[in-house]
Amino acid sequence: MAEAFHCGARITDLFVTVPARTRHHDLVAAIAAAGIPVQVVSGEVMDDLAQTVTPQGLLAVCGFVDVPLAEVAQRAMTAPRDKPALIALLANVRDPGNAGTVLRTADAAGAHAVVFADASVDPYNGKCVRASAGSLFHLPVVAGARLDDVVVTLREAGLRIVAADGRAGRSLDDPGVQARLAGPTAWMFGNEAWGLPPELVALADEPVAVPIYGRAESLNLAAAAAVCLYASARVQRVRE
Amino acid sequence: MAEAFHCGARITDLFVTVPARTRHHDLVAAIAAAGIPVQVVSGEVMDDLAQTVTPQGLLAVCGFVDVPLAEVAQRAMTAPRDKPALIALLANVRDPGNAGTVLRTADAAGAHAVVFADASVDPYNGKCVRASAGSLFHLPVVAGARLDDVVVTLREAGLRIVAADGRAGRSLDDPGVQARLAGPTAWMFGNEAWGLPPELVALADEPVAVPIYGRAESLNLAAAAAVCLYASARVQRVRE
Repeated sequence: MAEAFHCGARITDLFVTVPARTRHHDLVAAIAAAGIPVQVVSGEVMDDLAQTVTPQGLLAVCGFVDVPLAEVAQRAMTAPRDKPALIALLANVRDPGNAGTVLRTADAAGAHAVVFADASVDPYNGKCVRASAGSLFHLPVVAGARLDDVVVTLREAGLRIVAADGRAGRSLDDPGVQARLAGPTAWMFGNEAWGLPPELVALADEPVAVPIYGRAESLNLAAAAAVCLYASARVQRVRE
Repeated sequence: MAEAFHCGARITDLFVTVPARTRHHDLVAAIAAAGIPVQVVSGEVMDDLAQTVTPQGLLAVCGFVDVPLAEVAQRAMTAPRDKPALIALLANVRDPGNAGTVLRTADAAGAHAVVFADASVDPYNGKCVRASAGSLFHLPVVAGARLDDVVVTLREAGLRIVAADGRAGRSLDDPGVQARLAGPTAWMFGNEAWGLPPELVALADEPVAVPIYGRAESLNLAAAAAVCLYASARVQRVRE
């Protein structure tokens, strides 16, 4: 809520319960002062509106915040050499909790954008927004993109497309992989149940596996994305 | 299921639907051949038993698999020098999905054990077991431990206790931190909502923060644990 307001999301209406208006007095006053209509509602109405079990008592209606792919490509091209572009690309990620967590992690890792491609969940899905913990309003998000368009456009913008693929022969810890990750990179992450099928891996410049040192068959999607995005963030900065 | 059976968990009963018996014929036959009673049940009974929306049609009743803290400490002390002990220590992690995901990630990162301490969720919670994706049966798990006992016991076993704390002054990428992570390490992770309070951080030898490069306030617990455990796995192996 405060994220959305302070990050310049276009809030069109605010609904608030009486206890929440007291608890978040300064925020509600600031939103009202910005000329946004504020409606006081009962706890029952809030329960209905918020679609969550324990609503916080504040609900803002916002305009969409996603941006065109071309804008993300343009920003990637003009990224400074000491902070190369880093983009997370979701290919058919259906689970909203996982997608929202990847969005939050990408933000934390300093990524420049997150692209929701092909059959990925809508970034405005309520569970995705909540799992993103405000990050939906922190970095550019592209919604409803076609994966093959995205790959072509980002490659033309100078990014290497790296597929996170548990079956890949090369590991994230491989020195060659680490060296290549220092440049502008888009990480492609696949569906939470079946990962990236071969035809999508083939779109990438290189498939890379997070190494499995124990007996787990694979990593949870959001955990794998955290390891990959932070590996990029680290080597992109070590080079500075 | 196959995990539990092949990893030597004590299965005491197996319930199976007719379609699942056909689909998993070899596994069901192997379990029956091991002298374990197999009961065929209807889909309705399975729905009731499985406590999940889309049960897989197979349900095993298993004995507990957790081990005493002393056994984990003993194994840590005898870990070879080229594969130092790595342990995940959950301090009041209440959310079963997060706890199960950390268990799966710890397994993947080659950790030697996961300890559920203080008010952490029961590792046998159904959601935790499912999120662990079989890893509950892959590595030693300690349940219901007291955090202060765990810290004393693991420290005596030669492990450094590192608290994952977003407020810590030192970052995971700090060269000193990286060098120290090459030794035997227990990572302490706090509650998914409020992290580790100061009195628990004080129990550790060192608090360390996953760096936040963007505008996110913090990382999701399971994502932070993935970054920390893989950082340890990497530097413990680079030294080899």
